[in-house]
Amino acid sequence: MHRYRSHTCGALRPSDVGGEIRLSGWCHRIRDHGGVLFIDLRDHYGLTQCVVDSDSKAFKLAETVRSEWVIRLDGRVRTRPAGTENAELPTGAIEVYIDDIEVLGPAGELPLPVFGDQEYPEETRLAYRFLDLRREKLHANIMKRGAIIDSLRRRMRESGFFEFQTPILTASSPEGARDFLVPSRLHPGKFYALPQAPQQFKQLTMIAGFDRYFQIAPCFRDEDPRADRLPGEFYQLDVEMSFVTEQDVYATMEPVVRDTFVEFAEGKPVTQTFPRIPYAEAMLKYGSDKPDLRNPLIIADVSDEFARDEVEFKAFKGVVKSGGVVRAIPATGAAGQPRSFFDKLNDWARSEGAPGLGYVVFEDEGGVLTGKGPIAKFIPAEIQKAIAEKAGVKAGDAVFFSAGNEAKAAALAGKARNRIADELGLVDRDRYAFCWITDFPMYEWNEDEKKIDFSHNPFSGPNVSHEEFLALDPADTEAVLKLKAVQYDMVCNGYEVASGSIRNHRPDAMVKAFEIAGYGEADVHARFGGMYRAFQYGAPPHGGMAAGIDRLVMLLVGAINLREVTLFPMNQRAEDLLLGAPSEATPKQLRELHIRLNLPEKKG
Amino acid sequence: MHRYRSHTCGALRPSDVGGEIRLSGWCHRIRDHGGVLFIDLRDHYGLTQCVVDSDSKAFKLAETVRSEWVIRLDGRVRTRPAGTENAELPTGAIEVYIDDIEVLGPAGELPLPVFGDQEYPEETRLAYRFLDLRREKLHANIMKRGAIIDSLRRRMRESGFFEFQTPILTASSPEGARDFLVPSRLHPGKFYALPQAPQQFKQLTMIAGFDRYFQIAPCFRDEDPRADRLPGEFYQLDVEMSFVTEQDVYATMEPVVRDTFVEFAEGKPVTQTFPRIPYAEAMLKYGSDKPDLRNPLIIADVSDEFARDEVEFKAFKGVVKSGGVVRAIPATGAAGQPRSFFDKLNDWARSEGAPGLGYVVFEDEGGVLTGKGPIAKFIPAEIQKAIAEKAGVKAGDAVFFSAGNEAKAAALAGKARNRIADELGLVDRDRYAFCWITDFPMYEWNEDEKKIDFSHNPFSGPNVSHEEFLALDPADTEAVLKLKAVQYDMVCNGYEVASGSIRNHRPDAMVKAFEIAGYGEADVHARFGGMYRAFQYGAPPHGGMAAGIDRLVMLLVGAINLREVTLFPMNQRAEDLLLGAPSEATPKQLRELHIRLNLPEKKG
Repeated sequence: MHRYRSHTCGALRPSDVGGEIRLSGWCHRIRDHGGVLFIDLRDHYGLTQCVVDSDSKAFKLAETVRSEWVIRLDGRVRTRPAGTENAELPTGAIEVYIDDIEVLGPAGELPLPVFGDQEYPEETRLAYRFLDLRREKLHANIMKRGAIIDSLRRRMRESGFFEFQTPILTASSPEGARDFLVPSRLHPGKFYALPQAPQQFKQLTMIAGFDRYFQIAPCFRDEDPRADRLPGEFYQLDVEMSFVTEQDVYATMEPVVRDTFVEFAEGKPVTQTFPRIPYAEAMLKYGSDKPDLRNPLIIADVSDEFARDEVEFKAFKGVVKSGGVVRAIPATGAAGQPRSFFDKLNDWARSEGAPGLGYVVFEDEGGVLTGKGPIAKFIPAEIQKAIAEKAGVKAGDAVFFSAGNEAKAAALAGKARNRIADELGLVDRDRYAFCWITDFPMYEWNEDEKKIDFSHNPFSGPNVSHEEFLALDPADTEAVLKLKAVQYDMVCNGYEVASGSIRNHRPDAMVKAFEIAGYGEADVHARFGGMYRAFQYGAPPHGGMAAGIDRLVMLLVGAINLREVTLFPMNQRAEDLLLGAPSEATPKQLRELHIRLNLPEKKG
Repeated sequence: MHRYRSHTCGALRPSDVGGEIRLSGWCHRIRDHGGVLFIDLRDHYGLTQCVVDSDSKAFKLAETVRSEWVIRLDGRVRTRPAGTENAELPTGAIEVYIDDIEVLGPAGELPLPVFGDQEYPEETRLAYRFLDLRREKLHANIMKRGAIIDSLRRRMRESGFFEFQTPILTASSPEGARDFLVPSRLHPGKFYALPQAPQQFKQLTMIAGFDRYFQIAPCFRDEDPRADRLPGEFYQLDVEMSFVTEQDVYATMEPVVRDTFVEFAEGKPVTQTFPRIPYAEAMLKYGSDKPDLRNPLIIADVSDEFARDEVEFKAFKGVVKSGGVVRAIPATGAAGQPRSFFDKLNDWARSEGAPGLGYVVFEDEGGVLTGKGPIAKFIPAEIQKAIAEKAGVKAGDAVFFSAGNEAKAAALAGKARNRIADELGLVDRDRYAFCWITDFPMYEWNEDEKKIDFSHNPFSGPNVSHEEFLALDPADTEAVLKLKAVQYDMVCNGYEVASGSIRNHRPDAMVKAFEIAGYGEADVHARFGGMYRAFQYGAPPHGGMAAGIDRLVMLLVGAINLREVTLFPMNQRAEDLLLGAPSEATPKQLRELHIRLNLPEKKG
């Protein structure tokens, strides 16, 4: 017989009854029924009920074992007494009568129980992560994470992609976030950087002719703690393809992500064909470039209606006259809501810095759709009707308004849309609603510095021809701000789950793109020298995307904290409480790395 | 038709003749046959011969394209003229007549040609890695690396293992090599370390109950440049299993590695059942714990023979009397070698710091095996015969001797064994000869510091029972040095390709192991606190191994330099010549990381 086990703790079935077997595992739960001990023995594969009484020579030792001790036991499989079967356990029809026990790994008093669902403070859970990970839910999350990654990887390979490993000790790549630096021992005063993403390497892989790249890639960003982000490192499904347009990226990646979701969604519906929504349309209809399409409400622009002479509502009229917009957010079925519903939304809007949300409640008055509420009387009936039509509302519904400059009004409308749908219970949470957001602006106006900035990253190409792009006058701010990049995001349930673009692959286009953002060719050399050099020697058109693995897994396991889907995460202060990182270096280490500490002065 | 291609450059066949197609790729080779241009268009998938003449409207543009330009071309598939087919190319029966060309990515003068096999300096190859990677051999190596990793991963999954991602920003783990450190911005004066291996995390994963772990894991060691090692980072197939003995590790991992080799060995024989050779036996028979079993020579101990009274050869006799050994290395068929063969080996031995290699040449003199050579006359015939028998030689062979203290004599004998077999052409290079080396000593004597050290790493458990180990007297140096660890290496063709052990999993055994090496419990806390803590709460028996992926790939592609199997390697001075790493940090970065430079003073 094997030294530790003939079966796992999830294996035994009625067909094994009578067999002499050996199990090893953790004592999950121990119940003392006066002279009879029940030990639920647990391993990765399941749970087996084991029984011992004073007739067994193992009884005395069995009385000493405690929760989470690791034991090996020999015994005989028998049918559970009628009425004590557990239909929820695959092993629930049998139990093991214990003949012999060996203690393999005793356990001290537990700072965190494994059995049960009790909540524990996160610091305790992280310091004793090895115990927390034994708990059912977290254990299952981590296993599901692995299965999701396996599935993504398999689908990528079946789609003709090859997996590569790109360097982790590399050059600083100024992509927006802060780099982690690694002092070089061999090159005094110099530093490696950990990659924020393998962006340059994947593009170089295309230029090297490998055609279809992917990687489950660790990425590193030294950012300040944020609730929805793990400090330090995260994983992305990183993808790049040569000789493609954005249509190829959609056609390739949509099935990969969709089918993975179908596989792990446990029956929840998943969008079959992802709608493609231009950025401008998304900002109008959903007030967000990460719309939650489970929310059925669609925002409408009613600026024209409020601009009309007959309207007497001066506040909105003035907004439109000074170049702003008015957006209408439908509130389906809200007419029946009490006054407090409307007041609460107004209070919320004011907490967001807006003057409030105007609204009109629509009722049927003798077959005529009639607006009610504080501002309704300033809006002629005909225009009320036009607004109702645009907002797609009918009697029994209401419409809220968000007015101001376009960006702010759209953003407020988007938040109001979420809030209203939440309050009215309009969101079907049990599905995965995907879309692509396309046609992002290539540049944006930086109001603080009064200059043109890249909207996303400097690698994306424009959606005009190479020749048209080169001919663009950088001083023509209007034309520049109108320019779209071939840049797209994949969005699910209000979260950006992936982002990508078709890249600039011609050196003159790269220089032009930087020129428009106010950088010279020397900046291109300094910041992206390797890639700029590579573009000089026959670069293919290429593009791709990167999907946040941790985010995909979170959506699929229904977790709201990334630490619930990560094996050994750091805490929110970027500390590893299990192994104790970061920690102090020795003077010898610092000397070898040619650095010394430069600590902030202590106060007081 | 697709924007860039209807087919890849490896796809067209005689059945496509007559079709209008579109290809994109690199101009691999351009031949001008006076009015007719041949362009071999290349992509990842293959090569297609394309033709254009002055009848085509594309001719003028075609005349301007150069090697490694990326173009898109439209054309018609036609059969190659009889006699011009190329049977070595899958597309060799057809060619494409070009109707239209679009330049997608022009290329400047190439610092490194892609076509052809010419050698180029490594610095050029690394600075223009994207060109070097387009070359046939390197491109194929990288693809094979990916396929090997895919295969290993698939086999691990099929063997019931789950893949996990362990942290890369973590705590310093004192495992022997130097850590790379990462200054923490949020915790002034503290540092993360990059993992030398995920050793502690994989053990914690077992303690967390996941049963079977693997990872294609990036590992980081800040070591001085060595020819057979990439600076900085490397990948290992990292494996750990719970409730196992070493037999389970052998039974699991031997098929994974063997079958991967069979898959990629291109017909070369691969050892079917890996011999298991105890360390002591390997050091005796092969003079190495990394024996190349393709070499048929087996070393024998002939100390007893030289110790006998009748032997007059004082040098060896003295060695044996003072506790040393004499080892005999057979040299099959060496009797026919000229004197210079023996002289050269003697010179080499002296260059290794030995006094020389004594030798005896065996001849058949009238049916009697007779030793010849400088020292033969000091060895009586009967003892010559005994030596010949032990060394397994016959008339026509020779025997070399290595004498001295056991470790040195064994090592020299091992090197001589390799050298002799090389010189005599005895090694069948076209196969993969595997073995396990087992039963490594757990401790060794550090002669410099006059103390006991761990032989390998502090995680391995002893091959005696828990109780026996705890009872061991640390002061009993002889017993300590005799103790074996349950530690094993997998060796192929003279290289260690994997190493592993069954671990200590009980806290008292861990403390004992450190105590023997002269460390107190406080050291255990300080150095391996997280794991020591975890051992207190129910740790299962566990063990595993780690295989060097880069090394496995090197063996399988027949490369002798790790840079030939790595996508974007650093050079031997740990510099990335493509992206320019390491590089200087900005004063702002240093300030944020709470460090300043401490540069060595410039000389003179």
